[in-house]
Amino acid sequence: MNCGSWRVKQVIIINGALKLPKGKLAAQVAHAAVASFVAAPSKNQKAWIDVGMPKIVLSASSEQELLEYYQKAINANLPSQLIKDAGKTVIAAGTITCIGVGPALEKKIDQITGDLKLVG
Amino acid sequence: MNCGSWRVKQVIIINGALKLPKGKLAAQVAHAAVASFVAAPSKNQKAWIDVGMPKIVLSASSEQELLEYYQKAINANLPSQLIKDAGKTVIAAGTITCIGVGPALEKKIDQITGDLKLVG
Repeated sequence: MNCGSWRVKQVIIINGALKLPKGKLAAQVAHAAVASFVAAPSKNQKAWIDVGMPKIVLSASSEQELLEYYQKAINANLPSQLIKDAGKTVIAAGTITCIGVGPALEKKIDQITGDLKLVG
Repeated sequence: MNCGSWRVKQVIIINGALKLPKGKLAAQVAHAAVASFVAAPSKNQKAWIDVGMPKIVLSASSEQELLEYYQKAINANLPSQLIKDAGKTVIAAGTITCIGVGPALEKKIDQITGDLKLVG
């Protein structure tokens, strides 16, 4: 039996071109994680909590690439949220900093984000 | 009228001594944000979503200091979660990486965390 085929996870993809300072980046990723969680169906929320809320942070090379991944996630009916910064500090208001995808089935997410690299 | 007195926010405090790489840090902060959100009363959740889920990331200087802030938050009946790393990658399993506090009233959180510095 391949249990891995129905595991649930969450992926946050950042706009790596922004090179945000680490505290700012962490707050934006956290925003995406909560927003995408809230947008997900309750069965996804529950299944994800039950397995310890696994999440990974990946990097896209530009805002354009980030938007392409967001569109793919939406097209695949994955719960997804686009995060824009309020612009009070480091970057201009409305700058797209990251997207949250899931919690959803790992194999469905991996079909879309599987070629992106982890943020070190 | 001082509307600020009943604003709702969330604070994540990291263990600054660990000096985690930024992707790892972001994932841990996101974990704290979601876990503390899930642990909060539904009225806090709703009020926080309504104002755009404001959050800040602060730094404690050691695990010991982080545990002291966690205890203060618990004593003040603030929704709080202690996050330990699963230890698959950068750090040892069970290492305390951060805590999430709130969403809750800003003035109640600030009484506890107001002296900590933002993560740059």
